[in-house]
Amino acid sequence: MPTMTAADRRGEAKREYDAYVANCPSRMLLDRMSDKWVALILVALGDRTMRYSELSRAVAGVSQKMLTQTLRTLERDGLVTREVTVSVPVRVDYSLTPLGLSLRQLMRGVKDWAEVHMDEVFEARERYDHRDDEQ
Amino acid sequence: MPTMTAADRRGEAKREYDAYVANCPSRMLLDRMSDKWVALILVALGDRTMRYSELSRAVAGVSQKMLTQTLRTLERDGLVTREVTVSVPVRVDYSLTPLGLSLRQLMRGVKDWAEVHMDEVFEARERYDHRDDEQ
Repeated sequence: MPTMTAADRRGEAKREYDAYVANCPSRMLLDRMSDKWVALILVALGDRTMRYSELSRAVAGVSQKMLTQTLRTLERDGLVTREVTVSVPVRVDYSLTPLGLSLRQLMRGVKDWAEVHMDEVFEARERYDHRDDEQ
Repeated sequence: MPTMTAADRRGEAKREYDAYVANCPSRMLLDRMSDKWVALILVALGDRTMRYSELSRAVAGVSQKMLTQTLRTLERDGLVTREVTVSVPVRVDYSLTPLGLSLRQLMRGVKDWAEVHMDEVFEARERYDHRDDEQ
C-alpha cells in the first residue's frame, strides 16, 4: 500500500493486518521487533530515561553500531524518544513513548520467560540429545 | 556452566539467569526465541496439533529448510512435540508442550501487537521521515 497516506490507513479497520500473510507489513514489523536487542533496550528504558552511555552499559555486549542502529529504528517507529540537551558535552537521553511502553510489557514477559525457564530448556536439550536414535 | 548437570542446575535459584549479562545462556535463549518464525509457529500450534504440511501452509512464505530447522530447535528445547505415526504415507504431527504453551501466550501478544499497532508505526515513520533536519 505505498500510495496510501496515514489518514487513509487510519480509516481502515485496525485488524486489516495479518502477520501470517507473507507480504503483510505487520510480518516485517514482527520480524523487526523480534530481536533480543529490542527486548533488552525496551525493558531497560521501561524503568527510566537513560543516556546512551548508560544504555550501552546496561545492555552488556551490544556493539555501538548495533545500539545506535536499533535506537534509530525504535525512534523512527515511534517507540523511543531521543532528546538532545545542548550542553558541554551534548547530552542525549532516550525514553519510551506510550507505544514503546505497550511493547515493553510484552518484551519483559519474553525476557523473563527466557530467564525463568532456562533450566527446563536445559533439561529438554539433555533429553533430546540422549534419546534413542529410533526416530 | 558446561560441567553442571541438569540436577545441579535445578538445585539453584530460578532467577540466577540474567539476559542483561552478555554470556548468560538466557541471553542466547532470548535471542533464539526472538524470531518471527518461532512466534508464528507457536501461535499456530496453540490452536491445535498440526501436520508439517499444514504448518507450512499456515506460515506463508517460510522455506522448508527454515521450518524444519525451527521445528527441530523448538523440539530440542522442549517447546514442541513431534509425533510420528507409522502409516502410508508416514504422518508427522506437531503440537505444543506445556512449556511451549507458556511461551506461546507471550508470542501471541507480540504478534497481535504488531498487527494492532501497525498504523501507529506507519504514522511515526512518516513524522520521522518528514521532520525538520534540525537534530
